[in-house]
Amino acid sequence: MQAWRNPHLVSYAQAAAAFATREQTPRDFLERCIAAIEAHESRIQAFVSLDLKMARAAADASSKRWRAGKPLSPIDGCPVAIKDIMATADLPTQMGSPAFQGWQSGQDAACVHALRRGGALIFNKTVTTEFAIGFSGPTTNPFNARHTPGGSSSGTAAAVGGGMLPVGLGTQTQGSTLRPASFCGAVGFKPTLHAFNTAGIHPLSSTCDHLGVIGATLEDTWMIASQLSLGIGSPGYGFLNGAAATPPVAVQPHKLVVLHTRGWQEIDEPTRNAFNATLRALQDAGIELVSEDEDPRVQAFEAALERDIDGALDIVAYEMQWPYRDYIARFGRQIGKRIHGLIKRANVMVPADYAALLETRQSARRHARELLITLGADAFVTLASSGPAPRGRKESGSRSFLTPASWLGFPAFALPLMESGGLPFGLQLMGADHLDGNLFAAARWIMREFT
Amino acid sequence: MQAWRNPHLVSYAQAAAAFATREQTPRDFLERCIAAIEAHESRIQAFVSLDLKMARAAADASSKRWRAGKPLSPIDGCPVAIKDIMATADLPTQMGSPAFQGWQSGQDAACVHALRRGGALIFNKTVTTEFAIGFSGPTTNPFNARHTPGGSSSGTAAAVGGGMLPVGLGTQTQGSTLRPASFCGAVGFKPTLHAFNTAGIHPLSSTCDHLGVIGATLEDTWMIASQLSLGIGSPGYGFLNGAAATPPVAVQPHKLVVLHTRGWQEIDEPTRNAFNATLRALQDAGIELVSEDEDPRVQAFEAALERDIDGALDIVAYEMQWPYRDYIARFGRQIGKRIHGLIKRANVMVPADYAALLETRQSARRHARELLITLGADAFVTLASSGPAPRGRKESGSRSFLTPASWLGFPAFALPLMESGGLPFGLQLMGADHLDGNLFAAARWIMREFT
Repeated sequence: MQAWRNPHLVSYAQAAAAFATREQTPRDFLERCIAAIEAHESRIQAFVSLDLKMARAAADASSKRWRAGKPLSPIDGCPVAIKDIMATADLPTQMGSPAFQGWQSGQDAACVHALRRGGALIFNKTVTTEFAIGFSGPTTNPFNARHTPGGSSSGTAAAVGGGMLPVGLGTQTQGSTLRPASFCGAVGFKPTLHAFNTAGIHPLSSTCDHLGVIGATLEDTWMIASQLSLGIGSPGYGFLNGAAATPPVAVQPHKLVVLHTRGWQEIDEPTRNAFNATLRALQDAGIELVSEDEDPRVQAFEAALERDIDGALDIVAYEMQWPYRDYIARFGRQIGKRIHGLIKRANVMVPADYAALLETRQSARRHARELLITLGADAFVTLASSGPAPRGRKESGSRSFLTPASWLGFPAFALPLMESGGLPFGLQLMGADHLDGNLFAAARWIMREFT
Repeated sequence: MQAWRNPHLVSYAQAAAAFATREQTPRDFLERCIAAIEAHESRIQAFVSLDLKMARAAADASSKRWRAGKPLSPIDGCPVAIKDIMATADLPTQMGSPAFQGWQSGQDAACVHALRRGGALIFNKTVTTEFAIGFSGPTTNPFNARHTPGGSSSGTAAAVGGGMLPVGLGTQTQGSTLRPASFCGAVGFKPTLHAFNTAGIHPLSSTCDHLGVIGATLEDTWMIASQLSLGIGSPGYGFLNGAAATPPVAVQPHKLVVLHTRGWQEIDEPTRNAFNATLRALQDAGIELVSEDEDPRVQAFEAALERDIDGALDIVAYEMQWPYRDYIARFGRQIGKRIHGLIKRANVMVPADYAALLETRQSARRHARELLITLGADAFVTLASSGPAPRGRKESGSRSFLTPASWLGFPAFALPLMESGGLPFGLQLMGADHLDGNLFAAARWIMREFT
């Protein structure tokens, strides 16, 4: 099957092969990106801060290192989009909030530091919804400016999907990396919970916040993920499974569990048809599929998910009490309505409620792992959003297909393989926690087969 | 047995009983603290920042609430020492480092916010060693100014042990709460790893940093710990076991495992005699004791600890890479030698080394839990430091007795029950993780029996 392809994408991973042979330099690559930024940024509005002088100086330094045969890492010279809730030593970090207008952290977040150490070009900050959960910013969908780019990593997804940058950083507490990646026609990756060091990223929910990567290709995404994982210190998980200078090779999955979730009720017919066609193509390629329609064990899992998944937002609200209760006290109406609402939601919870939600979540994780093992399946497959981006830019779209991976803390990819009405949407692969590299291998096989 | 008692201590928990009956006000209590500060601070040098005007205004507001019968929490009006690596909205946060001189966070750390919400008086910052791991500050031991107060929570421990404040916050990555509590004759408490929200506390090591409490009495300590735990959001552990408006009642432990650790080689004869006398008193009170001398299972645990415990510092060094590698690049020699050395230690480690250390630590946790269960023991008992504070103020003392609880992530108390040569030192109780309330009940029984 020839799947949909995003014509805008610009891949660093492909270009870097020419750096080693000196046919091209990081500066040449950057200039391609800058040309695209100059052509499209006034429409897409992905960036909050953008310092092209800084970018060119950094690219020249990188070009010099490649010429000397001494790049700092495989991503030396890669221009990276940085979501504006991540601290940067030089550029302001403004959280998409008027309360943080012009705010300077004075230091790099761990993720930014890791990229800078590897020689990546850090010269921009991208639009985020307010604190990655509140009102939307100005960014438009690169495929239709009247549609949302998705949120909360709106600017990073639009910059990559619109072909202005090859790769960037996002975060996902509920659906904030995979959803905008899906809407903007890019690859999205959210690793196992806590696989990366999230220090210096403005917090929403300590047990739900994931650092994610959005890229033009799987390979771009994995190169950045590997650099984020290696040699920077981490929060006790060890490191990203499969992180290495060379990404894991493609491996055909044997069996996939098709997940419907409550998102299945939200999608329109063209979306359902495109998804079913993709599933058929997977079967034609020799992959076995199993869903709730064939197996009562999948049905039981879907039912448990439907029963418990609303607890995901309760956990987020409870953990948001710091610092958002303080922000509401200090900044009042400068803080958006949605955040006010979430803190109200937390106000009626007691610690025992929270403890019970954590227990339920633990059970769900065991349940999901056991289901994969019992069925002999490699991963789950579902949609990466409820179809293409809806019209309008105030709302950033449904999270129904995204919340499960965030809640479970399982790694997930959004693969840009489908479209409807000229707007893209992704296929989602979700694997068991701590097996990110295996999931990448499966995703790589699917992308190779379909494109 | 009548154990040693610290004559300086001033307890908020005892005073607060008189607030409810209006015989005393928080302002009265604060004035007692201020009188002690005026008498002793020039010698002890516990504070980096101290705003008595702010303190009095906050105490008056609290007195009004108590008069109206509407205190915000049981700790409304409690003056609390805040270690200067914890962000405060009003006072600077300077990390004991010239690189952060005058630095303002602009917001409260989660712990400070939790205390402020409960009505605690926040008006000071206490001396910390550089970033809680580097060179020492000016604080002296309240019992002898030529001796160290211990580190890294030097100022908080000296302020409480010297009778200037009833309670305060510290942190412990290796030994930084219990050691200074032991040297200064105060109660120290380090909870189960991640029991409190540590957001807004300057990081050292994400899987080793604990927020701790140092208090005049167990009850003061537990009141503050409870307020830190309730209703502030937390990092996924749930909440502090036993956290409540009323602390757990005293429960006599049935059996304790005596731990020697490598610290046993470091102590002098008076320390050993005092510890053995305390153990005999525990036995006389009907508590069964078991050590490596009687049981090969304890011997095996001591041997495993001795074999693996050096990995604790490797984990710290590895996780310190962010932000300390960046700080060294930016601040050079303003960053102390010890931190330079730790980053060098991390430089030779690869992620697989780190992953192996985490595995070893997991095994040690299982081993320690199983040992308690197998022996039917309530907790471990050992020293809270290698005897009394050593002379000199550059070094803050050995961590040998402290590292195990930090490494295991198990809750631990330092109980100020012994002295030698006019300098105090503590008994350490360490329990299984997530059973903090049970350990408090045992500690409470011992304190009641001995004092």
